[in-house]
Amino acid sequence: MELLTTNNVWMMVCTALVFFMHLGFSLLEVGLTRQKNAINILFKNVFIICAGLLTYAIIGFNLMYPGSFIAGFIPDYFFDLFGLSAPVADGALDLAYNEGYTYWTDFLFQGMFAATAATIVSGAVAERIKLGSFMLFSVIYITIVYPIVGSWKWGGGFLDGLGFYDFAGSTLVHSVGGWAALIAIYLLGARLGKFGKDGQSHAIPGHNIPLATAGVFILWLGWFGFNGGSVLSADPSLTSITLVTTCLAAAAGGISAFVVSTIAYKNYDLTMFLNGILGGLVGITAGADLMSPLDAVLIGLVAGGVIVLGVALVEKLKLDDPVGAVAVHLACGIWGTLAVGIFGSMAGFNQLLIQLAGVGIIGAFCCITAFGILSIIKATMGLRMEEKEETEGLDAHEHGMDAYAEFGTVQER
Amino acid sequence: MELLTTNNVWMMVCTALVFFMHLGFSLLEVGLTRQKNAINILFKNVFIICAGLLTYAIIGFNLMYPGSFIAGFIPDYFFDLFGLSAPVADGALDLAYNEGYTYWTDFLFQGMFAATAATIVSGAVAERIKLGSFMLFSVIYITIVYPIVGSWKWGGGFLDGLGFYDFAGSTLVHSVGGWAALIAIYLLGARLGKFGKDGQSHAIPGHNIPLATAGVFILWLGWFGFNGGSVLSADPSLTSITLVTTCLAAAAGGISAFVVSTIAYKNYDLTMFLNGILGGLVGITAGADLMSPLDAVLIGLVAGGVIVLGVALVEKLKLDDPVGAVAVHLACGIWGTLAVGIFGSMAGFNQLLIQLAGVGIIGAFCCITAFGILSIIKATMGLRMEEKEETEGLDAHEHGMDAYAEFGTVQER
Amino acid sequence: MELLTTNNVWMMVCTALVFFMHLGFSLLEVGLTRQKNAINILFKNVFIICAGLLTYAIIGFNLMYPGSFIAGFIPDYFFDLFGLSAPVADGALDLAYNEGYTYWTDFLFQGMFAATAATIVSGAVAERIKLGSFMLFSVIYITIVYPIVGSWKWGGGFLDGLGFYDFAGSTLVHSVGGWAALIAIYLLGARLGKFGKDGQSHAIPGHNIPLATAGVFILWLGWFGFNGGSVLSADPSLTSITLVTTCLAAAAGGISAFVVSTIAYKNYDLTMFLNGILGGLVGITAGADLMSPLDAVLIGLVAGGVIVLGVALVEKLKLDDPVGAVAVHLACGIWGTLAVGIFGSMAGFNQLLIQLAGVGIIGAFCCITAFGILSIIKATMGLRMEEKEETEGLDAHEHGMDAYAEFGTVQER
Repeated sequence: MELLTTNNVWMMVCTALVFFMHLGFSLLEVGLTRQKNAINILFKNVFIICAGLLTYAIIGFNLMYPGSFIAGFIPDYFFDLFGLSAPVADGALDLAYNEGYTYWTDFLFQGMFAATAATIVSGAVAERIKLGSFMLFSVIYITIVYPIVGSWKWGGGFLDGLGFYDFAGSTLVHSVGGWAALIAIYLLGARLGKFGKDGQSHAIPGHNIPLATAGVFILWLGWFGFNGGSVLSADPSLTSITLVTTCLAAAAGGISAFVVSTIAYKNYDLTMFLNGILGGLVGITAGADLMSPLDAVLIGLVAGGVIVLGVALVEKLKLDDPVGAVAVHLACGIWGTLAVGIFGSMAGFNQLLIQLAGVGIIGAFCCITAFGILSIIKATMGLRMEEKEETEGLDAHEHGMDAYAEFGTVQER
Repeated sequence: MELLTTNNVWMMVCTALVFFMHLGFSLLEVGLTRQKNAINILFKNVFIICAGLLTYAIIGFNLMYPGSFIAGFIPDYFFDLFGLSAPVADGALDLAYNEGYTYWTDFLFQGMFAATAATIVSGAVAERIKLGSFMLFSVIYITIVYPIVGSWKWGGGFLDGLGFYDFAGSTLVHSVGGWAALIAIYLLGARLGKFGKDGQSHAIPGHNIPLATAGVFILWLGWFGFNGGSVLSADPSLTSITLVTTCLAAAAGGISAFVVSTIAYKNYDLTMFLNGILGGLVGITAGADLMSPLDAVLIGLVAGGVIVLGVALVEKLKLDDPVGAVAVHLACGIWGTLAVGIFGSMAGFNQLLIQLAGVGIIGAFCCITAFGILSIIKATMGLRMEEKEETEGLDAHEHGMDAYAEFGTVQER
Repeated sequence: MELLTTNNVWMMVCTALVFFMHLGFSLLEVGLTRQKNAINILFKNVFIICAGLLTYAIIGFNLMYPGSFIAGFIPDYFFDLFGLSAPVADGALDLAYNEGYTYWTDFLFQGMFAATAATIVSGAVAERIKLGSFMLFSVIYITIVYPIVGSWKWGGGFLDGLGFYDFAGSTLVHSVGGWAALIAIYLLGARLGKFGKDGQSHAIPGHNIPLATAGVFILWLGWFGFNGGSVLSADPSLTSITLVTTCLAAAAGGISAFVVSTIAYKNYDLTMFLNGILGGLVGITAGADLMSPLDAVLIGLVAGGVIVLGVALVEKLKLDDPVGAVAVHLACGIWGTLAVGIFGSMAGFNQLLIQLAGVGIIGAFCCITAFGILSIIKATMGLRMEEKEETEGLDAHEHGMDAYAEFGTVQER
């Protein structure tokens, strides 16, 4: 009982920290885009956490932890589809549910994770997607796709049976969001003015870098809960080594992206530094409990390079990802998942193949479902704002308000 | 001892989170008002937490938990009026004080709550109140009125004896602040330019909506501590269900206010969404430990509607509440308190009447005392800035500094 | 085992809070300076936490807790210089390492402290130092100077043997940073335009006071971990009285600086209020576990006065400290360290002399090493930006980006 109480306290603290990541995502995203769309971006982020928690309560949680599967990969959720049903013993909450947390803590911790996947998409599609279309997509994606994928590993499904390992979600959370982001920016097209007629790309600078930086610090803080809570108890050894690997990978990712980008572009690029930190965090997430500090540093160093290359590659493909979400969450998510087979206590060629299989299977499923859902929305409601609306800003057109009603602007972009 | 240590850790974490709400209130309030008064607003918020903690140490804590009462409702504080006096056993702090926390944790947790009530007033009276007058009022209100009301329920007073229930303070904290806010904006009058000569109202947009949004996320985070800590221990069942109901009510409140306001005003109104979240949080606060997840969602959904209606009603009454504090803290505080009689494990007509009685008695006391204190201040020091000062901004006149010394402004409002 | 788990949870929470202080420092510093250097300031702060963690893992941690000393004051680190080496028992992490935390928690908590010292310097030298020179200095200072000084007390060195007391680092962290800040601003010289030809000083207002205020709230929150975690366990009495003294000193420091500065300058000066809070926090840090609430209030009240005087004195000496780091971290760090001999359970003339000796010895060592390192950098790489670069802003010259690409500015300063 004492131990359950302690474990549960830790898990609640971690839940709060993961919740707080939604502020981190909001600030990062709003800071790296233009002020004429700031209200729109904040609206999406506020919507996602609210809608994500509600849908996860109604469907997602049961879908993700179904107990059994149909044909091995369809969660067998028919009995418990709607709503939460806490286990009861002697007229009270059954504390034997788990030694690390109560049923309610379990739900809330997992619910905070669920909304994260959609938030990742939000950054990539910023400044041009229709708000209604985005809300519809994100609700479907959080409610159905994310929990089904999650059930395959964390719900005891076939990927778990295969030996696939993903501690806190480099693939199950970050890549799930990252794949949808990739598909979405492909279907949406680039923002007006991002790529010139002759094909060269133009930087569209973010409007508030101090807020973006604050967002990254908050995300790093939130990762204490994201990874630390994924131990699913307050086990002193596991939680503390996890925090150490998490922080060292973040630090190494930042330094690496800073050094690589400085060499490549002869400029101290703060945005690269920040995305390098996030890349290190995403990269360590799949194996944060398996790595030594040195492993974590190496994973972070590679992740920093992946960020610089990933951002360049996305741009080369004429895809427009205003916040670098694909490089951070997809590329480093894949890297981190594979790293489980390369570094740490599970390393081995066989494990690497299993990790690769998991990445591939989940990638295919996410791409197909995201493409399907977005295509239907595109064909019916439409995905993209009118050209005039995009030029004048989504805030004026969708929200009728201005993020900074009194600040003068240098120019209308 | 192990359990006390764990409980106390949780209570200290919650104390920190409630402290952090003061940043949330600061950012919300500063974001929803004009830049020419930003320094003034920040100054008030910084002052409140500092002065609130000091006065609570000197008087408030003893007044709120007096042990006995004179004539049933006047806290009998004469022996312990000034300063903190920790219980001692064997020359050390007596850990038998409570199984959930130490004396010091108790003081600090409650002290963080105390300052909250005055912060609520701060938002409503923003942009026109004299700083000195506000500081004097808030000190008196935190030091005397808040603890006396609190003593009636949490200090074991007559409302507690009546069976009145208010888990974490929908009434005892939020309405206590909300009533004072209502009285204050009535006595102060609207900001210049808020209502035209022909009676129509003009929107005065906030100057930094990203900061306001950050404020709401921080407040939500803080509510993990506000409600989670009100369990007064780390009891796994109670704390975790409390966090679930808290978060679901917040989510439902936001979605509800968003939907209702979109239907009513044909606009995706981010401010309504944000205030809906806060309304859901205030609404669940009185019964967060009594509700099922579904109850919490229903309470939140109603709270979202209350927000939209409340804001419209305040405006209709020609009252000027720049941040919507009356709708959020007073209207939803009342709603949440009554909801204890409608939903959850204490629901019943009798309970509803008791809740109503508590709302009425506390409301009357707060209105009378707030009116009295503010009237005396108005008659002596004056409440309101000079017209010229208000037009040019309080920052220039009271503080001689500018919140954003280098940003150009679109226009002087 | 239960108790270790609980202790370790508390220490991990405190670690997260101390980490979060780096956002607080970033926002405070960026808010109190000019927008043309905002990217540069953020870059430095992001760099420090990343580089600080990595170097602390490689060298600093072993250097600070060496086990033994050569000639009494040189940490005998030769065996364990590089990298972390966790104690192992039965093939797993040895939990007998400490009853309050694991080896990993120990490292990470201390690592978060290490970076703090360099962050203090960052604020003082803002807006004119070369980025590369600052990065080099801060890495050397965190990696070598900070751990050696720390080893003398916290590593069991000669100052510990003398009876010197510094609970959480008024001297070992804050003054170590403060002395380097003092030396650095002396060597760097004032920002262009700070002091006129006739010697009078000109205020250079910060560009974003709401962010600076948020920074102070975050720092206060972080201090829950900084001081609360310095108990090195979750002991209910010690942790909770520590949080109480910490918060009361902060509140008293703020109110005191506000009152003193209002009397002195006839102005409600928010910056003084904020620095007063920080001064109270720094002041209580050396003896937060030794003081009664009343002691803490007195220490805070004095610290508030020290801030107002300290800022004036720095200016009088024609030194340019944009954020008041010397007054906050050095002056109040000294005050807090001496206060251990004046207030609380260790007070006494003998103790006061020991505290004074500690302040003097560490001060001399920090000044000499900082002067030496900075002089070598000055002679080789140079310390200061070119006049043209400083006038046009470091963001344009070092980073090629703008913190607020779209906001118009009142004037180029």
